[in-house]
Amino acid sequence: MNAEALAKTIHSKKAHYWSRSRKKVWLKGETSGNVQTVREIRTDCDQDAIVMKVDVAGKDASCHTGRVSCFYRSIEVDEAGKYTLEFDDRERVFDPEDVYRK
Amino acid sequence: MNAEALAKTIHSKKAHYWSRSRKKVWLKGETSGNVQTVREIRTDCDQDAIVMKVDVAGKDASCHTGRVSCFYRSIEVDEAGKYTLEFDDRERVFDPEDVYRK
Repeated sequence: MNAEALAKTIHSKKAHYWSRSRKKVWLKGETSGNVQTVREIRTDCDQDAIVMKVDVAGKDASCHTGRVSCFYRSIEVDEAGKYTLEFDDRERVFDPEDVYRK
Repeated sequence: MNAEALAKTIHSKKAHYWSRSRKKVWLKGETSGNVQTVREIRTDCDQDAIVMKVDVAGKDASCHTGRVSCFYRSIEVDEAGKYTLEFDDRERVFDPEDVYRK
């Protein structure tokens, strides 16, 4: 999110983000329908981060992979100190092929 | 958090961060006692962000201002479109003067 995306989010109460791949501000959900309506925006002590509480429309999912949350993997460390990412696929609620490839 | 801070966090299960002001990795809580013990680390779909679930020791607060959370202000917009930050001071659980000025 850049300054323009934040301003649009505050005024429209719909979450906007900066797309690094497309190099433009976009309305989250404009393709998928999973628009985020903002209930609350909070900022931290040194004002370089925000947390938003949102209601999600459409399929109630926020991740482009079809999951409710982007944070669908946890970091696990075995006894030898080796890292793995453990998937939690239960949260997948739509198939990205159906939504983004039309 | 930089790569060194993340590695120390994963191995020690105590949250470490990069201090931009001190230009070094630090153990969160080394002065205040409010050490964060990591229960879970999750990463997002494109692996440029993490969320950690932690148990907080000491006074059970994570903000240097003495509040439980750094996100103690919400962004409010009036009908004229003017922004204000609304404080929620109920969460202040310690006086920073007592903790950091000893």
